[in-house]
Amino acid sequence: MGMRTSIATVCLSGQLTEKLHACAEAGFDGVEIMDADLVAAPESPEEIRALCARLGLRIDMFQPFRDAEGVLDSDFAEVLSRAEAKFDVMERLGTDLMLLCSNVATATIGDDETLVRQLGQFADRAAARGIRIAYEALAWGRFVQDYRHAWNLVRRADRPNLGVCLDSFHILSLGLDPSGIEQIDAEKIFFLQLADAPDLDLDVLSWSRHHRLFPGEGSFELPAFLSHVLRAGYSGPLSLEVFNDTFRQTDARETADHALRSLRWLADQTAAANGWSEDRLQAPQVPRGVDFVEVAGEDLTELDQLLDQLGFIFGGRHRSKPVRLWSRGSARVILNEQARESQPRVASVGMLVDDTEAAMHRALGIGADEVFRRTFAGEQRLRGVASPDGTQVFWSDRPPSASWIQEFAGGETEHAGAAAGGAVDHINLGYSWERFDAAVLFHTSVLGLESESTAELPGPRGLVRSTVMRTPDGAVQLALNLAPPSAPALARHVAIRVDDVTDVARLARDRGLSLLRIPQNYYDDLGARFDIDPAELAELRELGLLYDRDEHGAFVHFYTPTFGGVFFEMVERRGGYVGFGAASTPVRLNAQQ
Amino acid sequence: MGMRTSIATVCLSGQLTEKLHACAEAGFDGVEIMDADLVAAPESPEEIRALCARLGLRIDMFQPFRDAEGVLDSDFAEVLSRAEAKFDVMERLGTDLMLLCSNVATATIGDDETLVRQLGQFADRAAARGIRIAYEALAWGRFVQDYRHAWNLVRRADRPNLGVCLDSFHILSLGLDPSGIEQIDAEKIFFLQLADAPDLDLDVLSWSRHHRLFPGEGSFELPAFLSHVLRAGYSGPLSLEVFNDTFRQTDARETADHALRSLRWLADQTAAANGWSEDRLQAPQVPRGVDFVEVAGEDLTELDQLLDQLGFIFGGRHRSKPVRLWSRGSARVILNEQARESQPRVASVGMLVDDTEAAMHRALGIGADEVFRRTFAGEQRLRGVASPDGTQVFWSDRPPSASWIQEFAGGETEHAGAAAGGAVDHINLGYSWERFDAAVLFHTSVLGLESESTAELPGPRGLVRSTVMRTPDGAVQLALNLAPPSAPALARHVAIRVDDVTDVARLARDRGLSLLRIPQNYYDDLGARFDIDPAELAELRELGLLYDRDEHGAFVHFYTPTFGGVFFEMVERRGGYVGFGAASTPVRLNAQQ
Repeated sequence: MGMRTSIATVCLSGQLTEKLHACAEAGFDGVEIMDADLVAAPESPEEIRALCARLGLRIDMFQPFRDAEGVLDSDFAEVLSRAEAKFDVMERLGTDLMLLCSNVATATIGDDETLVRQLGQFADRAAARGIRIAYEALAWGRFVQDYRHAWNLVRRADRPNLGVCLDSFHILSLGLDPSGIEQIDAEKIFFLQLADAPDLDLDVLSWSRHHRLFPGEGSFELPAFLSHVLRAGYSGPLSLEVFNDTFRQTDARETADHALRSLRWLADQTAAANGWSEDRLQAPQVPRGVDFVEVAGEDLTELDQLLDQLGFIFGGRHRSKPVRLWSRGSARVILNEQARESQPRVASVGMLVDDTEAAMHRALGIGADEVFRRTFAGEQRLRGVASPDGTQVFWSDRPPSASWIQEFAGGETEHAGAAAGGAVDHINLGYSWERFDAAVLFHTSVLGLESESTAELPGPRGLVRSTVMRTPDGAVQLALNLAPPSAPALARHVAIRVDDVTDVARLARDRGLSLLRIPQNYYDDLGARFDIDPAELAELRELGLLYDRDEHGAFVHFYTPTFGGVFFEMVERRGGYVGFGAASTPVRLNAQQ
Repeated sequence: MGMRTSIATVCLSGQLTEKLHACAEAGFDGVEIMDADLVAAPESPEEIRALCARLGLRIDMFQPFRDAEGVLDSDFAEVLSRAEAKFDVMERLGTDLMLLCSNVATATIGDDETLVRQLGQFADRAAARGIRIAYEALAWGRFVQDYRHAWNLVRRADRPNLGVCLDSFHILSLGLDPSGIEQIDAEKIFFLQLADAPDLDLDVLSWSRHHRLFPGEGSFELPAFLSHVLRAGYSGPLSLEVFNDTFRQTDARETADHALRSLRWLADQTAAANGWSEDRLQAPQVPRGVDFVEVAGEDLTELDQLLDQLGFIFGGRHRSKPVRLWSRGSARVILNEQARESQPRVASVGMLVDDTEAAMHRALGIGADEVFRRTFAGEQRLRGVASPDGTQVFWSDRPPSASWIQEFAGGETEHAGAAAGGAVDHINLGYSWERFDAAVLFHTSVLGLESESTAELPGPRGLVRSTVMRTPDGAVQLALNLAPPSAPALARHVAIRVDDVTDVARLARDRGLSLLRIPQNYYDDLGARFDIDPAELAELRELGLLYDRDEHGAFVHFYTPTFGGVFFEMVERRGGYVGFGAASTPVRLNAQQ
């Protein structure tokens, strides 16, 4: 491994030079230059070549050339003259590899003899210019859709400068078995393009053009795919080609960073799957639990009151910062008034791991940015990184008796907080549509969480898509919510699991908290949907609790009002209930409106 | 005809009461209340009933009830008890019709005998409460997907209070022949739901849940569909049920207006198709051509200069307003400095029709809003309406010798302007993603334009979707462009057709205009794509002209710089070229960046 990284310019927004700067700043070794990007650029090929040289980017491939083979010989002359003009451009760019896609539009002749002959002629013209041709089977090619067919044609044409380009999308979208890649001669795999994709039942052309994702964000088995390619002996660049409507609109620099992290994750997963230990990053430190959740804001007095109402125990003030600690069982909430922002927001999440340094190594190896927190002598130095939207993740490997918790004084003991009972059940993080996929990748690659199924929940301002990510043991559970494009940012919330949520709700009410107001109609509907004991239903209704049930057990929960961008949820899991009460989410979204 | 109108609350954004107000203000006669909307509402069913009564909205149906039939008899008791709870809600709402969808999730028994028996039992329980059941075959039902199957079950169950609900989406999405509707007994069609949809090759559930459109905006043949339903004798409401991610986020009042216009269009098209002349609106006055394009702004001096550079002839100042006229052939551009907005924008388009009053009748009959322009004694009173984004459309049926043109003085004559040669070729209107579908409907229903194929064009800030709408004879051609959600509003442009665009470009250059700068790479690519005479290619390159070719002829054009939200394009059509140079659009979008 230790392979070079590359990316197609079509993955990014902006003008060609912006794209190239973004690729270089992210740290890619090379680029595939898309013909249309060059055509629309005011810079000459020589200028682009010089810019790439200055930026340290190799131009790995010029792409695509389309609709060459499978035409009448009388029309093939025009193909070759069109190709010669592009060979001129490639010479000026200083790149020697051209992607040739299997004919989609103009092919009328499908017999292999014609295809082999024309591919050979095409390669010969390229050879005269010192150019190599990477032939790729498009999933919607007229006669050639299967990479094995493309390889067979290339093998028969038998030209030193003619090879194949493999693209994970074209192979996996058709459900082709990728193990056949290992039958291809190593030196004949001229290029490799990688893309992930969500599981969609959509025509393959639309799926490809609008919905590709970076590796780790979709449902393709890319480590297995890449393993086949590497076992075949391929040693060229790992290149990303991702057509995606969202990434086309996202800041190029942000997308390039995000893209490179996906390649690092994929290379590491592939090394892990094959036992290539020298190529591995530090393995992810799967968190053992949530150490703390930090809420930052200019004035958090209302949150002090809220936490008190929810039965949290005040753990004191930090000795050197305007920061306060509250805890309930193992759930610790830090209120940080250093923030200049006026609105309360979830600023960071602390994760308990076995080895903080290993977790940092992992995160930095994937490409996350380290964040800095000022610490004083004798204080625990928290180490962590920024997630795609700036929320910070910190790690701690110390038991509470030795951790930052000791820096707080003037409140109850950690023991008193623990005695109150409770734990972080899950944390719900809302993302804008531009950053949702990057957030999935971050939590997969840096934290080692796994995506569970996704739900779409109708709210009064549009559908909210929610994906649960969790550790295999469920010790850490996050719900990543994707806000509708036109909606304001979604408030984030922390869900605390307690033994008896009914007790907590009564306590909170007695201490003056008004829970989120749940419509009476909701309880009528509960009565219709579930066979609930009337007394229990009456209690739910009286306290304003929400309820759900699955085949394992039941889920009872309530929400607090929202303070700025934060609210809390208190939950009780009865039996082995595994969900998050998604059926009630539309009611919650309406009630919060 | 003269049928009642209804809409499902799920079509609209917001809380239930907001939705009901929006439906009433738009002018709907009734609503289908979606169970989930009621469950999430703080108002009791009695309050919703009273609000609907005050607003003059009839609650036509309560919907949906799911997963009833096809279960074990031992489980059917639970279905009935769930139904009883919803019958309670319906009684409180004061509605007697329930939509029952064919079982998707819980059905395990598919034989018709069981289905007939359980449907009958379900209907009997409803009958005891005075409730009628409209059974609907969902396209993805477990055992019942076809409306003919549903009708057969209903017929065999033979209960007076059991009928069918027909939904155009579920029937047309599966490609079922809708003519079988005419075989259903009129009194057994309890309800009719209407939705259009784009032609997508997507699984039918996702297609239905995210991409439905209002009638006239998709590719279903809804007038033919509705004709079958009416010929069967149905006389209940025409109701809309449109699940659409965009409409879920759009202002409810705007969507409700838009929705009602779609029903009016559909009813009129259906009456037209059947020769029911008493039910027709005034037929659309298909425009004969563009009378003028009005650009409004605070200071339009730069546009005066631009039009002069493009060879337009100054036609004088308006006698009572700060408005100036320029013309070139039949193309007239009005510069209106009455606008308080600082940026130039396309404020209105004048259409030449045979009968202005008929055009206004049509527009008002569809539900468009009339706009007002102050006129003085002796001036032509322009009549027109606002399109969905506020751009105005005016009609004129007078020859130039008798029209508003005579109100301008101090410039050259209309004859001199006409002699310059030229015509409006097309007008390109950018819309935000929230208003694109409403714009398609407006131009279909009010102007009688027809949608041509849609292209997706990559720009540096995302994909731009462009749909051409035109009169059958091509006298009026509009390109409606859909901006990516995150992009700033797209500038709009007016394309003027001339006999010799090369001459016009030279004139403009001589008069000091810098055309939009086209990259040299574009010309290298033209040389690769087309067999163009080198002298001609050199001339294109020298002047900065764009070029395209199809099987009929060629298209040569150029763009001016953008002023505020407006720019101009000058085009020459050689031979019978029918396109709009879409292949060059990415280059244009980049150059404008």
